[in-house]
Amino acid sequence: MKMNRELVMIPGPTPVTEPIRNEMERETAAFKDPNFIEDFQQVISDLKNLWGSSEVFVVAGSGTLSMEMAISNTLKKSDPVLVISHGFFGDRMAELCERKGLEVDVLSCEWGKAVPVEEVEKKLSNKNYRAVTVTHVDTSTGTKAPLEELGKLLDKHQDTLFIVDGVCSTAGEPEFINEMGIDILLTASQKAFGVPPGLAIVWASDKALKRREKIGEISEYYADFNKWLPIMNDPSKYFGTPPVNLIWALKKSLEFIKTEGLKERFKRHQVRGKAIQKALEGIGLNILAEEGARASTISNALYPEGIDDTFRKVLKEEGVVVAGGLGPYADKLFRLGHMGNIDINELVTVISSIERTLFRLDYPVEFGKGVNIFLDNIMRN
Amino acid sequence: MKMNRELVMIPGPTPVTEPIRNEMERETAAFKDPNFIEDFQQVISDLKNLWGSSEVFVVAGSGTLSMEMAISNTLKKSDPVLVISHGFFGDRMAELCERKGLEVDVLSCEWGKAVPVEEVEKKLSNKNYRAVTVTHVDTSTGTKAPLEELGKLLDKHQDTLFIVDGVCSTAGEPEFINEMGIDILLTASQKAFGVPPGLAIVWASDKALKRREKIGEISEYYADFNKWLPIMNDPSKYFGTPPVNLIWALKKSLEFIKTEGLKERFKRHQVRGKAIQKALEGIGLNILAEEGARASTISNALYPEGIDDTFRKVLKEEGVVVAGGLGPYADKLFRLGHMGNIDINELVTVISSIERTLFRLDYPVEFGKGVNIFLDNIMRN
Amino acid sequence: MKMNRELVMIPGPTPVTEPIRNEMERETAAFKDPNFIEDFQQVISDLKNLWGSSEVFVVAGSGTLSMEMAISNTLKKSDPVLVISHGFFGDRMAELCERKGLEVDVLSCEWGKAVPVEEVEKKLSNKNYRAVTVTHVDTSTGTKAPLEELGKLLDKHQDTLFIVDGVCSTAGEPEFINEMGIDILLTASQKAFGVPPGLAIVWASDKALKRREKIGEISEYYADFNKWLPIMNDPSKYFGTPPVNLIWALKKSLEFIKTEGLKERFKRHQVRGKAIQKALEGIGLNILAEEGARASTISNALYPEGIDDTFRKVLKEEGVVVAGGLGPYADKLFRLGHMGNIDINELVTVISSIERTLFRLDYPVEFGKGVNIFLDNIMRN
Amino acid sequence: MKMNRELVMIPGPTPVTEPIRNEMERETAAFKDPNFIEDFQQVISDLKNLWGSSEVFVVAGSGTLSMEMAISNTLKKSDPVLVISHGFFGDRMAELCERKGLEVDVLSCEWGKAVPVEEVEKKLSNKNYRAVTVTHVDTSTGTKAPLEELGKLLDKHQDTLFIVDGVCSTAGEPEFINEMGIDILLTASQKAFGVPPGLAIVWASDKALKRREKIGEISEYYADFNKWLPIMNDPSKYFGTPPVNLIWALKKSLEFIKTEGLKERFKRHQVRGKAIQKALEGIGLNILAEEGARASTISNALYPEGIDDTFRKVLKEEGVVVAGGLGPYADKLFRLGHMGNIDINELVTVISSIERTLFRLDYPVEFGKGVNIFLDNIMRN
Repeated sequence: MKMNRELVMIPGPTPVTEPIRNEMERETAAFKDPNFIEDFQQVISDLKNLWGSSEVFVVAGSGTLSMEMAISNTLKKSDPVLVISHGFFGDRMAELCERKGLEVDVLSCEWGKAVPVEEVEKKLSNKNYRAVTVTHVDTSTGTKAPLEELGKLLDKHQDTLFIVDGVCSTAGEPEFINEMGIDILLTASQKAFGVPPGLAIVWASDKALKRREKIGEISEYYADFNKWLPIMNDPSKYFGTPPVNLIWALKKSLEFIKTEGLKERFKRHQVRGKAIQKALEGIGLNILAEEGARASTISNALYPEGIDDTFRKVLKEEGVVVAGGLGPYADKLFRLGHMGNIDINELVTVISSIERTLFRLDYPVEFGKGVNIFLDNIMRN
Repeated sequence: MKMNRELVMIPGPTPVTEPIRNEMERETAAFKDPNFIEDFQQVISDLKNLWGSSEVFVVAGSGTLSMEMAISNTLKKSDPVLVISHGFFGDRMAELCERKGLEVDVLSCEWGKAVPVEEVEKKLSNKNYRAVTVTHVDTSTGTKAPLEELGKLLDKHQDTLFIVDGVCSTAGEPEFINEMGIDILLTASQKAFGVPPGLAIVWASDKALKRREKIGEISEYYADFNKWLPIMNDPSKYFGTPPVNLIWALKKSLEFIKTEGLKERFKRHQVRGKAIQKALEGIGLNILAEEGARASTISNALYPEGIDDTFRKVLKEEGVVVAGGLGPYADKLFRLGHMGNIDINELVTVISSIERTLFRLDYPVEFGKGVNIFLDNIMRN
Repeated sequence: MKMNRELVMIPGPTPVTEPIRNEMERETAAFKDPNFIEDFQQVISDLKNLWGSSEVFVVAGSGTLSMEMAISNTLKKSDPVLVISHGFFGDRMAELCERKGLEVDVLSCEWGKAVPVEEVEKKLSNKNYRAVTVTHVDTSTGTKAPLEELGKLLDKHQDTLFIVDGVCSTAGEPEFINEMGIDILLTASQKAFGVPPGLAIVWASDKALKRREKIGEISEYYADFNKWLPIMNDPSKYFGTPPVNLIWALKKSLEFIKTEGLKERFKRHQVRGKAIQKALEGIGLNILAEEGARASTISNALYPEGIDDTFRKVLKEEGVVVAGGLGPYADKLFRLGHMGNIDINELVTVISSIERTLFRLDYPVEFGKGVNIFLDNIMRN
Repeated sequence: MKMNRELVMIPGPTPVTEPIRNEMERETAAFKDPNFIEDFQQVISDLKNLWGSSEVFVVAGSGTLSMEMAISNTLKKSDPVLVISHGFFGDRMAELCERKGLEVDVLSCEWGKAVPVEEVEKKLSNKNYRAVTVTHVDTSTGTKAPLEELGKLLDKHQDTLFIVDGVCSTAGEPEFINEMGIDILLTASQKAFGVPPGLAIVWASDKALKRREKIGEISEYYADFNKWLPIMNDPSKYFGTPPVNLIWALKKSLEFIKTEGLKERFKRHQVRGKAIQKALEGIGLNILAEEGARASTISNALYPEGIDDTFRKVLKEEGVVVAGGLGPYADKLFRLGHMGNIDINELVTVISSIERTLFRLDYPVEFGKGVNIFLDNIMRN
């Protein structure tokens, strides 16, 4: 057992703060315990109120299950769907849609760039898609999709559902279901909520729920909205045993979110994310995602000449864990999550650890420079 | 916050002992952390070795997901399947199979009785089923299916898979995958493993895996064995983020199981379960399941004349939580789980609490009588 | 690490309930942290209000330190003091007084009996004692002193301080400082408060504080009331670093005491203590303390013919830890604590475990008999 | 409840790492539990082996009790003692010695300076002191005494005991009992051991133990070595109830110390302490203690012109708690502890938080400068 704390700054699971971890440790209650029912109700109503949706589904599972729930409940075989892909998770959505027998068109681009909204517009004017999907932030590239503009575009296509994969964004990046015309927002617990992994979370608009009705019985069972709706409206009912401790953990996370204010939370992520990216660039690390398409929740930083994935090993010795590159960027970049319930001191720690790591790898480093840039950006604005 | 402990003796979640709860509280590690990968590997290999299967799948989800995984990966549309139902969860399996477009035959009987093996035999001789499913212990009735005999019977039908729903039995009732000819065994974490809810666990035999290959691509994505197989063989790979803390909790539970010995654990459940049932009968409570078909993990006890579900409210005040009756037995019985990591003292507590509760409800009680019967059965044999 | 809980039923430390243990785990705050200062203030004011004293001292230490604080701050060399001793801890008080150079008279009696109040009266009429000390409950014998009567007697001797060692009684046995004319009440955290060991707690009446003033500077430093008084009146001041986590634990214990009500707590101990003693006698174990002088917080039960201290080893295997006999009763009895934050189910567990232990030692046992007597006494009155 | 962690960097209690806090939360064992006895033995033998003493005493209490134990057990009324004082805690030692009726000579100097060894030498040549005491690191000033040189000096005075108050140094600053000729080393748990407050720890050399024998019975009881010696040699014996959880916490701390190596630990404190002081000076904060007399465990930094104690309030908002100045330096400096189980990232956090705090108070700050100096000192040497 290690004496000191290791800071897990991968794009999920993100650090779980102590008050949330305390919820994980509690004696598991009966899921029909009146106090637990009240807690679960609170979670559901908080999720609906904060994000402004008609319904929300909180189910034991991972983000992958969320994706499947989104698709299975809104599209049926042969339905045309447009998948905007900015990387691995966009491609996964396409694969999932194909698995479901949909007619899938994919709009993708070079990793690190964002698909221009005009291209989406063109596609939409050529075919009557039943849904457009987009990964708000693709962790493989750190690219953020222009959600607001896509929402506006889709406003003109009332029969096309707008499905947003928020796994690496929700609770960190601005997502307002009503205002942005989102029909399905899907995510998981272990990202910007700062809860351990194990919960799939899916919000649905009225339009999405109507679509669900329209498509009738589906072959999926565990992923079926219709099976969970009664429970989400009255958690004293049963379909599957809820993961009691994870729901308590999510409740605690939502308490922090309400205290902070959701908009303030988005703002915090935006300001700090930008500052981190400036700091990384100042140290000499390029960000994969192009300016204007960078996430506030994650930064994928390319290793400079002469540095390889040994970087991550050394960084772990310095107390910080980051993720490696995916696909074409394996060994070429590291992926740094900076979302959820983390504070300035933890971000300073991260930047300083990166500097120390580069130094140990014989890369020229001026200690404190990254911290300087980061704080100048945060404190002097 | 309550000063004293409430003993949650429903048929799941079962009491989570402190060493397991400590795992839930740990700082969540990166799922590619070498230590976590090792932990996950240990869990997988323990599950395979202890139950004697070719493969096992450990996935964020509930028992309902396990059921869907079992069916989706082994049967395709129009396949004939025989569902043996001893209550709510047997019926649910039938419903799930229908949802999947299977040709479903159901063998059921009066609640509390077990379907005679001869009836199953007859069915099997009349139709070439692709699978037979049975709920080992149905929590709605507390009935235990004659697993060993069914296994022997199915031995003569090599094309018919034997699918066992072990949600309320696995790790408490004898289930040996190879010896008993089981092809799929499915369960969840919050029952006889004594881990909080949130994990679906599914074992598969070679025959089941061959069937999976044969049926080709399936429409389910998250539930697809093929997606998880690479991870179960090498947990450093990724399909969906594993619920890190729950896997640690399961690992700790498996450590206790290995220390105790799996057969000794089965024996413990058997001896104590029988003793509890004798004790309940001695107090004046009839057991719904008929003699010979009673589970070792759960007892569904009918309220005597004059007692209704107020019983459960008062029992909670006495420190013990049990579940209510389902379907036709709502308000007519309570369901008492006695599986997992519980000790004699907790069972004495339960019996004594039941006596005190009956006393408070003006039912004639001789305090200590149930404890007497329970311990006579355990200690004097 | 054990799978199941071991119930520590010695006369201290007593079982620490989970909400109190959670306080032990918290990140230690600065002792000048405003929140901690408030918490400490709350503890002090609760202790004063509940027991009705002028001052209280809460200091890192054990009950032995409490004893020394009591004596050092109220008596000076050559002062005559009368020590009423009902066993080991009474004798220890005498030894401590001798160490301090006092003129010590000891009134003792056969272990298990109580010194008659008349004997005390006689002593008091013969000599002008500066203080009378008594151990309210002596854990070596389980004897309870007649506190109320002693208080009344001392009412006629206004120059004689009444010093009560409440280590094994406070928060379990009735002790009202004003009403009973107590001048010093001393105790420790790990007994009927149900807090881990590490805190010495001493209450002082106005009379005791005046005595402190009168005797001037004392040679003890850490034990000096005068050093701690400023801190007890304003915990933002410093003399020694307070044991932050233990004070939080005590605060939580006091919350439970306030919720329960102090008188109800005393009543609970009285009713249950008596019922336990009846149960033990019914099983065949004699109680050392004579009827009328039995504590509500502890029972010292003599082993029947043929049983020796192996009993405690076997009982531990049955899940319950008790203490062994002291002095002349080593190997002849066990000491069972039944004080603090324990509930009926834990007491049933204890009685049932004792029965099982006797059975395993070939002593004739009717299982459940002790539980029967215990509950008949509690539930049918 | 706060979402994020507050780093308590006062000169004690210091941050308690999670593995140590887990020990605090454990169910309290009986102090005669064989496992606990073994744990306590391990603690005692580790303390003796690591520091090289004949005996050690681990008792519920605070550092103030340690001081009293040191004096009470080695000096008797009228004994001449020389107290070297570098601030508040040196003066307290003088006060304590006076309380004990000793003939006290005090050698002190301006706060921040160290008493020259020559002055001590002169004193020693003029009077036959029974003991010389020195506070190794006085937290009021951050001054470190020249322990090694004092030890050498005392080597020539074999009848004079060398008593070292290590409250703010032990486990952080080099203290080797045999090599340095220390006779009594006293400390507490909440400083460089990184354990919550509540334990007094006192080591004694053979010479000190012989002195104890010589002085015969003492009036102190709880502080008496003779009462505790049997327990320290065999923790299955009883004098006062040991603070079980704190002893477990200390055991865990000792495990980390053994893993790190005691000399490496001293070196770590030295290197980092110096680097912190350079960084603080670089930012513009003067250190009270003069160069050559600076502790490695604490830095007392004077506020620059225009900054007052509001600094500490703002710093707390930035996530770090430090202590205020004492006596003449109230409001004029802050006291920063940097000892125990803290890592580089926490120290970077501290320095960066101080910069942000100064910036918020309109003091000219170049963000990252302190971090730069700190890391240059640590990484480039």
